[in-house]
Amino acid sequence: MPSSPEEICLHVCITCREAGGPEDKELRPGAILCRALTAALSQKGSPPVRVKPVECLSVCKRPCTIAVSAPGRWTYIYGDLKADTAVDTIIDGLRRYAATSDGLVPWRERPEAFRKGVIARIPPLKTSGTA
Amino acid sequence: MPSSPEEICLHVCITCREAGGPEDKELRPGAILCRALTAALSQKGSPPVRVKPVECLSVCKRPCTIAVSAPGRWTYIYGDLKADTAVDTIIDGLRRYAATSDGLVPWRERPEAFRKGVIARIPPLKTSGTA
Repeated sequence: MPSSPEEICLHVCITCREAGGPEDKELRPGAILCRALTAALSQKGSPPVRVKPVECLSVCKRPCTIAVSAPGRWTYIYGDLKADTAVDTIIDGLRRYAATSDGLVPWRERPEAFRKGVIARIPPLKTSGTA
Repeated sequence: MPSSPEEICLHVCITCREAGGPEDKELRPGAILCRALTAALSQKGSPPVRVKPVECLSVCKRPCTIAVSAPGRWTYIYGDLKADTAVDTIIDGLRRYAATSDGLVPWRERPEAFRKGVIARIPPLKTSGTA
């Protein structure tokens, strides 16, 4: 059973620092990205996604890092996303994810940053078919 | 609410090939590891975990790769595991994961292969507290 779009969760790691980047937590790339995504996803017409900041996704060498998940759908983790340019790309990818029943967006339909930046994917915990 | 240990799922990627490794799907390192883990986890006294083969976890450059997940617990993805030596280590790590309520095993208590091989981690979809 696919989840409703409202249950899609976008975790954004707010902790990673870029080499030479500022110490201030509010100025770290993931924190900037998280605020920008929260603002963008509150706009009318945006895919219905909950944004949740997280202290660490254990992908520390490839900031910014996000995880997209929903009950009954595959989870995807992406890295190498730029705080200042990735918002539109991420929202495009979320819209495509929301349009699927299982989270599997065909490779060629994924934003390029998602194709290049994929860190891992995990099947949903409970599926109606095979693993 | 933590899940019961019976709901812990171990996904094992059975697809990746090592450089120069055999083409035969049954002889790929993940397939060998998956069979060994299934046998080991059927032994009395093993942590109660369902082993599920999966075609691709998108961590293609670091075989063997596994994902450990359960409802209400953090999901962890590990790579760089050796098919012929990692079974005991993985079962040790699973036992520690099963002993937690949220999937968070303290860093120093994790098997070394889990500390070095962590690819990513993702919070549970629904938590009772903060993200």
